[in-house]
Amino acid sequence: MNRRRIPDVVIRRLPLYLRILDDLDYTDTPIISSQELGDRSGVTPGQLRKDLSFFGVFGKQGVGYNTYNLREELRKILRLHQQVHVGLVGVGNLGTALIRYNVAREKRYPEGTGLKLVAAFDADENKVGRKISGVEVFSDRDLPERIKEMNLSIIILTVPAQAASMVLDLCIQEGVKAFLNFAPTKLLAPSDVRIHHSDVTLEMESLAFFR
Amino acid sequence: MNRRRIPDVVIRRLPLYLRILDDLDYTDTPIISSQELGDRSGVTPGQLRKDLSFFGVFGKQGVGYNTYNLREELRKILRLHQQVHVGLVGVGNLGTALIRYNVAREKRYPEGTGLKLVAAFDADENKVGRKISGVEVFSDRDLPERIKEMNLSIIILTVPAQAASMVLDLCIQEGVKAFLNFAPTKLLAPSDVRIHHSDVTLEMESLAFFR
Repeated sequence: MNRRRIPDVVIRRLPLYLRILDDLDYTDTPIISSQELGDRSGVTPGQLRKDLSFFGVFGKQGVGYNTYNLREELRKILRLHQQVHVGLVGVGNLGTALIRYNVAREKRYPEGTGLKLVAAFDADENKVGRKISGVEVFSDRDLPERIKEMNLSIIILTVPAQAASMVLDLCIQEGVKAFLNFAPTKLLAPSDVRIHHSDVTLEMESLAFFR
Repeated sequence: MNRRRIPDVVIRRLPLYLRILDDLDYTDTPIISSQELGDRSGVTPGQLRKDLSFFGVFGKQGVGYNTYNLREELRKILRLHQQVHVGLVGVGNLGTALIRYNVAREKRYPEGTGLKLVAAFDADENKVGRKISGVEVFSDRDLPERIKEMNLSIIILTVPAQAASMVLDLCIQEGVKAFLNFAPTKLLAPSDVRIHHSDVTLEMESLAFFR
């Protein structure tokens, strides 16, 4: 499997399938059909089968997928079977809310969901040393060192727009390849770096259609 | 056009097309090809043409779309040509961050983007009467009255998970049909009500693939 050849939209659907499987009781539902899993995910059974076939995952014709095995396969494909350390830069209102949200989620799944927010960073020395829901705030000057030390491989950017590009470059230099950006600005990065933009405005604009 | 028959994914792409058109100078680019607009939006030209054809919008073959007209059409389709009043319930860290974000966006587009956040609500009486970036915080007991009075047609839910369902039902009773939910919980609503869920976990899980 060439990981770079898989369409983006396919990879974005995998966590959705995983969540549905996570919420199932494997004893009650040892097997799930592509129809059932598709219905619950909002895609056609054909789309679901095609998505999974990219990774060489096939169900048994006329039967379906082994629920437990499919979950394990998806965790491996998404590389969530080992713990992923996440850092957050920018401890303002949004940053604080996201730290609390993540820690609360981790507590709901005590056996782990693969993702763990382990460190926060801010430029404001007054915030350094504080703990938010148990997550320590470090100085953003320590970012390069901490990325290596704590093995941070996903960075959440909740810094102001004008600071985003500088922080991004710093993290890329330290080898980080995955970013979730909340700063309202376009960011440029080499092609092997992924930046997902969280965009509340686009969400609201599509909602306007339905009101 | 039967608005309910249009696939969701199509409607979610329209704001993306609109943003690209908004950022173009109509004098420099009076016409845009489906290839060019598709490239900038990350879809194939065929997908773009198909999306627009749902709404009876067609370009001139071999030429493209009139940039200005297409923008106006999209604004009408999304019902953003008249001002849409947005309310936010739950003025915690996330709510506060979203109010600031929205007001900053509105300031960047002084001619208006259709969406305007006009009121916030909270259960905590200590917060009532405060202004955040100029947006007043009302008591959530005044929600039904204010929805009518201020013509709120999109509600952003940033309340705790256990309060989300109650607030949702209250708003639906007052005729609100569009919600952007940040509370980490599943919500049930009649089929004519739209709820978009903002889900940071799904974003991070798909990022794990790329790290």
